[in-house]
Amino acid sequence: MDSRLRDTTPGWKERAYIIIFESDTHAGRLYDIVLLTVIVLSVATVMLDSVSTINAAYGAFLRVLEWFFTLLFTLEYLARLVVTRRKLAYAFSWLGIIDFLSTGPALAALVFSGGHYLLAIRTLRLLRMFRIFKLGKFVGEGEFIVDALKASRFKIMVFLTAVLTLTIVMGTLMYAIEGGEHGFTSIPKSVYWAIVTVTTVGYGDISPVTILGQTLASLLMVMGYGIIAVPTGIVSAQMAMPTRAAAAAAAAAIPTYKMAACQGCQATNHRPDAAFCWRCGQPL
Amino acid sequence: MDSRLRDTTPGWKERAYIIIFESDTHAGRLYDIVLLTVIVLSVATVMLDSVSTINAAYGAFLRVLEWFFTLLFTLEYLARLVVTRRKLAYAFSWLGIIDFLSTGPALAALVFSGGHYLLAIRTLRLLRMFRIFKLGKFVGEGEFIVDALKASRFKIMVFLTAVLTLTIVMGTLMYAIEGGEHGFTSIPKSVYWAIVTVTTVGYGDISPVTILGQTLASLLMVMGYGIIAVPTGIVSAQMAMPTRAAAAAAAAAIPTYKMAACQGCQATNHRPDAAFCWRCGQPL
Amino acid sequence: MDSRLRDTTPGWKERAYIIIFESDTHAGRLYDIVLLTVIVLSVATVMLDSVSTINAAYGAFLRVLEWFFTLLFTLEYLARLVVTRRKLAYAFSWLGIIDFLSTGPALAALVFSGGHYLLAIRTLRLLRMFRIFKLGKFVGEGEFIVDALKASRFKIMVFLTAVLTLTIVMGTLMYAIEGGEHGFTSIPKSVYWAIVTVTTVGYGDISPVTILGQTLASLLMVMGYGIIAVPTGIVSAQMAMPTRAAAAAAAAAIPTYKMAACQGCQATNHRPDAAFCWRCGQPL
Amino acid sequence: MDSRLRDTTPGWKERAYIIIFESDTHAGRLYDIVLLTVIVLSVATVMLDSVSTINAAYGAFLRVLEWFFTLLFTLEYLARLVVTRRKLAYAFSWLGIIDFLSTGPALAALVFSGGHYLLAIRTLRLLRMFRIFKLGKFVGEGEFIVDALKASRFKIMVFLTAVLTLTIVMGTLMYAIEGGEHGFTSIPKSVYWAIVTVTTVGYGDISPVTILGQTLASLLMVMGYGIIAVPTGIVSAQMAMPTRAAAAAAAAAIPTYKMAACQGCQATNHRPDAAFCWRCGQPL
Repeated sequence: MDSRLRDTTPGWKERAYIIIFESDTHAGRLYDIVLLTVIVLSVATVMLDSVSTINAAYGAFLRVLEWFFTLLFTLEYLARLVVTRRKLAYAFSWLGIIDFLSTGPALAALVFSGGHYLLAIRTLRLLRMFRIFKLGKFVGEGEFIVDALKASRFKIMVFLTAVLTLTIVMGTLMYAIEGGEHGFTSIPKSVYWAIVTVTTVGYGDISPVTILGQTLASLLMVMGYGIIAVPTGIVSAQMAMPTRAAAAAAAAAIPTYKMAACQGCQATNHRPDAAFCWRCGQPL
Repeated sequence: MDSRLRDTTPGWKERAYIIIFESDTHAGRLYDIVLLTVIVLSVATVMLDSVSTINAAYGAFLRVLEWFFTLLFTLEYLARLVVTRRKLAYAFSWLGIIDFLSTGPALAALVFSGGHYLLAIRTLRLLRMFRIFKLGKFVGEGEFIVDALKASRFKIMVFLTAVLTLTIVMGTLMYAIEGGEHGFTSIPKSVYWAIVTVTTVGYGDISPVTILGQTLASLLMVMGYGIIAVPTGIVSAQMAMPTRAAAAAAAAAIPTYKMAACQGCQATNHRPDAAFCWRCGQPL
Repeated sequence: MDSRLRDTTPGWKERAYIIIFESDTHAGRLYDIVLLTVIVLSVATVMLDSVSTINAAYGAFLRVLEWFFTLLFTLEYLARLVVTRRKLAYAFSWLGIIDFLSTGPALAALVFSGGHYLLAIRTLRLLRMFRIFKLGKFVGEGEFIVDALKASRFKIMVFLTAVLTLTIVMGTLMYAIEGGEHGFTSIPKSVYWAIVTVTTVGYGDISPVTILGQTLASLLMVMGYGIIAVPTGIVSAQMAMPTRAAAAAAAAAIPTYKMAACQGCQATNHRPDAAFCWRCGQPL
Repeated sequence: MDSRLRDTTPGWKERAYIIIFESDTHAGRLYDIVLLTVIVLSVATVMLDSVSTINAAYGAFLRVLEWFFTLLFTLEYLARLVVTRRKLAYAFSWLGIIDFLSTGPALAALVFSGGHYLLAIRTLRLLRMFRIFKLGKFVGEGEFIVDALKASRFKIMVFLTAVLTLTIVMGTLMYAIEGGEHGFTSIPKSVYWAIVTVTTVGYGDISPVTILGQTLASLLMVMGYGIIAVPTGIVSAQMAMPTRAAAAAAAAAIPTYKMAACQGCQATNHRPDAAFCWRCGQPL
């Protein structure tokens, strides 16, 4: 009985851990897919509940569903805490915090009505989806994108700083030129307009009216149109770069010199097929 | 007479099949071009008929044209069914279904007025255009694009999932921040706004009004402006990659020597198909 | 006197031709720059004249300027006709037609008021600017862009056809879904909306209101956001391709086989340093 | 005392110069970071002051802050003038002029109320941020972007000229087609619209209404959507090109054999620095 207990108890936690936290096994993958489905359903519930006509018709039913999903997520969060050995590490990891926020605050939000949109924070649990991508074909692809972005992060930061400075300067100029009566009521609002313009979003909620303002705006648009080439170029060039594996293969394909040193003069870098040392002429 | 019948009947169907379904022969190409012209004309008819002023003036004439084109497409559909041997395969192929929808439902739509815009489904027949692209110069080019997209499809799926999660999270946040009085009347509508923003479309039918909302929107815009680099980079890198054929040609151009040493002089780096040593002339 | 005349007359036309039509000489370049300045000034005049406040204040003066520039362009057109030997070829070339339209129709437009914006057609003369680009640094750069676009033209045509089919199908669907009361008053207008959306321009003059319409619009936006990667990828890949000169240099760097045939067996493709034939073992 | 003065006075200025103008030392870097923080704070003050509600509540306090920052910048400007030896070179450099404009005009703006947004010119001091980028990781990245843009500048100028000509021609056409009643009140305004459209910003403050206008606008959008590929392609191709250093390294990695034949055995492909034949060992 002693040995049965010893074998069973850790084995049960171990097995549960593998199912809940990992996705290498069949059961683990199934768990992840079920969980994702539940997350998608719970997010859909919150989204539908926010539509006033649907809320009026099915509000009570949706509220029950929200209670149900919140309960489910709470149980799941507790299960995760129980089965993992590194409880604190999990609780304070990004995913752990998001998991927690999908339970406690959600319950609070349900109790104090008016804040139930806080439930939507569980949308972030969808990020868990990327764990599934770790399986099969998606591994390399996801890593490829992340690697390219990571390798480009300094370039992108430099670029964003330049864009930010540009929008502050242009926003301030437009505030001076157009003024409040044309919607440029403050510098922050004008900077917001500059960002809307330089990113080519162009809502049109604020737009220049004076000739000078439109000229400056045109300049900003053309700059925005042109400088989008910079991040695109950065990432394209990064992605077009041979991957580490490919680079190694390419390096292997280039004929390399024989590195064994000549016994006479210690010279290296002989032709692969050299019979004599290129420096001292001694047979190799 | 027996042999004449045997020769003629299958020959007639065979020839019709080659004309209607294939486009390698002169007649087949001509058939495709005539068909495409008729499709373009019929689509133009439906489009013009939907313009109220034109409808008021030439409605009767356009209705006749629509009947005529529908009849023509019905006959063409029946002809296709007759001449092909794999009738079911055709009928349930994508092109077959589109061909069918251009006949039956169109007739129904004409009878029950008010739904005649269903005729526009025949626009999809324009996709047949790509079959013509299979000829001449377009073969490689079309395949090039499709290959690049196909090779990038997992990367693009990962990317789209990330963008979707981003828009749901941002949309929900904006719903909480801006609220219904500024147009963010529900989470689905806010997510729609987030998609409009992140793709830099920016209708301006909904736009943030509060300082916090505009700040968050600015962040989303800059992200959208930046992450467009990702699909572009993916496809650019894919297209910049040597095609399989080009890679094979390049590999063939690089001489790969046989490394086994000559037993006479120990020389290596022989041609892969060498029978004699290049240095001492001994048989390998 | 005879010889003086013979030498002078063709020499005068010849020299004028070199100045007016070519830009290799100092005088020719100066002529082009002066001409471009005059074109820019005349376009500016027409543009300013179209602004109602400026027109009210300086209309008479601007009208005199327009007469002056029109006269100048007419004289220049006649001069071009006189000095060139291939008069018809020039008159019916693109630049020749644009030059003509800057004179005759402009005069007509000035006489029949109300149509003086026809003068703006001379904006097209700015295209002459590209001739100046033929000088110095701009040669290679301009050719580089044009070459890349030319090499990509079939790919771009395939791409545009696909986009056009997409916008017609989506426009028709939106016409059926949203209908006239939300601005989608006809299929052509809905197709216009689809183009505004897929290109991420997004005026917002027409925008979907129903849930289904907004969902479909979101799909179209994401597609537009994604497929912009295709033309960008095409042109990037084309531009990243080694130029012909660079490719030749690269090919020269790859070690090639000795092509001289073996006198015994006519085998070629020997190692560059082979002493014996790889096929028959005979000394080379 | 003589030597003490000689050692101290220049030493003091020298040390101050290194701190204020350079950022290689620890103190210099600290100075830059403090200065940037002050610039950011002063810009934030001006921005907040422009928001009417904040201005109403904290206007007096913000005005005091603005006086304080202006005083600080004036002192810093004088300090820079004192410690540098090349006073004129600094005063008329770009950064020097911006530094000056952050003091004098700011004071003037504070005295003559209504123009205090001139203070915002100090936003340009943020450009100083790029000096900090000169440190560490950012060196290469910043230079990389600037190099790529510099190498592409002629291509980009050719491109921008083409886009400008296109927008003037299209703007004029739209002015003729749509006319003042649909917002195209003048040619400059129509050109502004064309720029808004071709850059895919699409405010929607002016948008075509007639069928012909919408058709032309659609054409312009598709062109804008397509030609954005050009600058992106230019920069991508430029960035994907191996940098000069990388190219040199790659070239060094490929063994370039000496082709001169050995006089003893006629062997070629010796190491470039070989003294003896690799095959027969004879001196070369």
